[in-house]
Amino acid sequence: MKSFKIALAQFSPHIGNIEANAEKMQQLANEAKAQKSDLIIFPELATIGYPAEDLLLRPSLSKRTQLAFEQLSQVKDIVMVFGFVNQTEDGQRYNSAAVMKDGKILGIYNKQNLPNYGVFDEKRYFNEGHQHLVFEYLGHKFGVLICEDIWSLNTVQQLAQLNVETALVLNASPYEVGKPQHRVETMSALAKQMNLNLVYANQVGGQDDLIFDGTSFVINKDGAVAVQAPSFKETLLYSDYIGEQQSYQVTESSPTLETMAEIYQALVMATRDYVHRSGFPGVILGLSGGIDSALTLAIAVDAIGADKVQAVMMPYTYTSQISVEDAAAQAKNMGITFGIAEINPIVNSFMQTLYPFFGNAPADATEENLQARTRGTLLMGLSNKFGNLVLSTGNKSELSVGYCTLYGDMVGGFAVLKDVYKTIVFELAKYRNSISETPVIPERVITRPPSAELRPDQTDQDSLPAYDVLDAILYAYIEEDMSQDDIIAKGFDADVVKKVIRLVDFNEYKRRQGSIGPRISSRAFSRERRYPIINGWKAGL
Amino acid sequence: MKSFKIALAQFSPHIGNIEANAEKMQQLANEAKAQKSDLIIFPELATIGYPAEDLLLRPSLSKRTQLAFEQLSQVKDIVMVFGFVNQTEDGQRYNSAAVMKDGKILGIYNKQNLPNYGVFDEKRYFNEGHQHLVFEYLGHKFGVLICEDIWSLNTVQQLAQLNVETALVLNASPYEVGKPQHRVETMSALAKQMNLNLVYANQVGGQDDLIFDGTSFVINKDGAVAVQAPSFKETLLYSDYIGEQQSYQVTESSPTLETMAEIYQALVMATRDYVHRSGFPGVILGLSGGIDSALTLAIAVDAIGADKVQAVMMPYTYTSQISVEDAAAQAKNMGITFGIAEINPIVNSFMQTLYPFFGNAPADATEENLQARTRGTLLMGLSNKFGNLVLSTGNKSELSVGYCTLYGDMVGGFAVLKDVYKTIVFELAKYRNSISETPVIPERVITRPPSAELRPDQTDQDSLPAYDVLDAILYAYIEEDMSQDDIIAKGFDADVVKKVIRLVDFNEYKRRQGSIGPRISSRAFSRERRYPIINGWKAGL
Repeated sequence: MKSFKIALAQFSPHIGNIEANAEKMQQLANEAKAQKSDLIIFPELATIGYPAEDLLLRPSLSKRTQLAFEQLSQVKDIVMVFGFVNQTEDGQRYNSAAVMKDGKILGIYNKQNLPNYGVFDEKRYFNEGHQHLVFEYLGHKFGVLICEDIWSLNTVQQLAQLNVETALVLNASPYEVGKPQHRVETMSALAKQMNLNLVYANQVGGQDDLIFDGTSFVINKDGAVAVQAPSFKETLLYSDYIGEQQSYQVTESSPTLETMAEIYQALVMATRDYVHRSGFPGVILGLSGGIDSALTLAIAVDAIGADKVQAVMMPYTYTSQISVEDAAAQAKNMGITFGIAEINPIVNSFMQTLYPFFGNAPADATEENLQARTRGTLLMGLSNKFGNLVLSTGNKSELSVGYCTLYGDMVGGFAVLKDVYKTIVFELAKYRNSISETPVIPERVITRPPSAELRPDQTDQDSLPAYDVLDAILYAYIEEDMSQDDIIAKGFDADVVKKVIRLVDFNEYKRRQGSIGPRISSRAFSRERRYPIINGWKAGL
Repeated sequence: MKSFKIALAQFSPHIGNIEANAEKMQQLANEAKAQKSDLIIFPELATIGYPAEDLLLRPSLSKRTQLAFEQLSQVKDIVMVFGFVNQTEDGQRYNSAAVMKDGKILGIYNKQNLPNYGVFDEKRYFNEGHQHLVFEYLGHKFGVLICEDIWSLNTVQQLAQLNVETALVLNASPYEVGKPQHRVETMSALAKQMNLNLVYANQVGGQDDLIFDGTSFVINKDGAVAVQAPSFKETLLYSDYIGEQQSYQVTESSPTLETMAEIYQALVMATRDYVHRSGFPGVILGLSGGIDSALTLAIAVDAIGADKVQAVMMPYTYTSQISVEDAAAQAKNMGITFGIAEINPIVNSFMQTLYPFFGNAPADATEENLQARTRGTLLMGLSNKFGNLVLSTGNKSELSVGYCTLYGDMVGGFAVLKDVYKTIVFELAKYRNSISETPVIPERVITRPPSAELRPDQTDQDSLPAYDVLDAILYAYIEEDMSQDDIIAKGFDADVVKKVIRLVDFNEYKRRQGSIGPRISSRAFSRERRYPIINGWKAGL
């Protein structure tokens, strides 16, 4: 039995930029070769990146892919297995893997299982493949699978029956909480069941709302993890196959992350990739003295550095002194650019213009929204003038029930906490404080009762149930698809459940105009939960 | 040969409201029976409406559908053919048609061709059927097809080979310019080719961004249109089959609409349905003296009546007297509620707050955006206080190149002209003036050069090519998917083409936060053109 070395390119493609991706893949292959690797495996659709959405339908795609193949043909003396879009002469399009050596294509595999649920739309773009690809190299029998294929017992069984020793699995598997560990555990059991070594290379990086965690790995056919790459980082991971032992060498792996660390790092990477790839020089956000903006600020600084982060406190009559102090303290702690802009004169001039229209109508949420929209407009003004991206700071609990102002605090290009429930916001804030010597978020921000400060002595719990109750109801309704009746049957107050569900349903129009934000849950809004705005579905059974 | 009578229910379902839809279907069936019809055909998925999106995934759907069947079982002495969601015991879900008489289900047909391109996502929800349904009734042989099925030559051929005389086709076929006529022409040729009578019942009504025009029809196997329903209206259309002649009686049909009339009526219906079904008492919009808001106002008044429409003119230093005069004149013409709110004090107070941050930075688009955002905030204030829906007034040309302000003039819940290029806006304004005795849109609004009036003496053509050139480039790039090189090769100025494409690509983030608006083209933004925001695809080949 021969020994050999495999490289796993945990690679972050620039979506759509086929030219740049091919160049980077070439570099990685050459680097792997310099480290004496015999084979390098790239993620699913590595040439164009995942998900490229309707760019996959542009007529020049096959021409561009061809140019990428010419670029990759220049790599010598190493086998490359990489994902690409295979457009055949009969007009079919496949999500495929090529096996290439010294510029020759040794084989092409077309993905057989096309996910078309949740965040996936592969049947919009691709045809299904119907054939396995198996090749011998270095006296070893390899098979190729692409992402969803490895989750189909049928497909894997067929491959194993071809006496394949190692399945090379190309992936673009999106992150959600706990997914890295769930993947390894499932694959470990599968490897053992099928008596098959698994080499699993995953895309890494943030792409719009999707996060790819990487966490690539090699698992031996006995189920043991030979090696695992870190999450949320580009890496070239190596694994040695020891011929004598007929297994991949077990070496030290990156440690598995504890849940809050995992989420925090996911959000940091997503924010960094969005800012950098959208070409903004930095970010700006409104700091309110509350926990959402405090956590968003910490993530922004960890993502792109304090020198590229600007925050503005925009107090009004109802803003407490505590809020101004805490915001200023955190800004100072973190070493960012910070300014204060009083909004009273602007809000007052809005009021004066509107009074003749309002007549004797009593004050209501309208006046509160004016405060939020004045702040939004100020942030956008600063963004327009200096070019920084506005980060919005709302969380998933707020966005679910519409406890946020469209064109106000919802302003921004990237909503860092969009898919993070308020109860998790608290946990993340505590986690972030726990990893530095001195807390970056003032303690008081975490401990005082949350308030939007849009009315005197307001707290969030004037309008909403306690956040632990709210989040539990939301989770049941959104993530678990439970009905109103079933949630009430779990023991929650019926009126509270009805109100929460009514608010979630009603506020679809607001969410539809919100900015994108990184998905960390198993049911994020927008791409994954596609509800009509005009919606006559009645809550109940 | 027996004679009989068929009723086509050109029906506007309330999406998701299965209970209300079933009740309405029951009423329509009873009405058709009172008119001595032997059979009534409803549109595709009539019980839940099309497209119900992820409501189709809710666990209680099958229970709700069952209740709808119980309701419909009460109808006696008429055969009903209607679309519904068929969930089988093995966990499969089909887009189906039921044939029911006197509460008995005589047959079920599962749609065989599931569209999953353009605006369609049926493979996210449904499994494919593999069997035809044929039934004899009144000595006549009927077959059933659902929407996409009739566009698949293979499927239709198979049905024709079963000696079917009439194909009952249940549809939810979305509108786009020219589609009603295209449908009839294609189906007429098909009927002749297949020697098959076609009874084509289509959904009608606006649902979020989609418009269903109805325009149901009956076509005889010789290709002649027996009868055609009007577009954009709920109708119960009848057709008599004359046994002796072995054909459906040819009667007077609703006239085919000229293009501008068709688009105008489409926009009116879409606006009406959105306002009514979202539960707003009326609408409000900003009237600028320009053609986009003038046309939007006319559509709004035609949709829901002048008494439910409010407009506000919000002049600033750069607003010309002409604009104020024209806006006031149109408001008076149309008999709507109209007010004027000067925005200078508000914009000035924004400026004063921002000056300390801006320092010596030169004036740029930032200051222009402040005007637009002040107007947006005022409109939202009036909307929040009195409950009217804000209509946004931007057109497709602007939205394509980002010639609009996020959170400014893009504010609103429904963008009536979102999918209407500026050159078509002009045509529609002229059309609207042509159909009333006195023009409702002042002539000068149509003839003067378009301007955003955000700078002294500004016109749109300071920043953009002439609209006929701009729209031609946009159409080639968006609707026709042409590459930059190919568009330049058509003879357009290379620098202009490059600039336009750069702007379209760059402004995806803006469109993503815009409101929905009715689709009238063959490539509308959002649901139909799904581009990533972070997008490294380089224009060129």
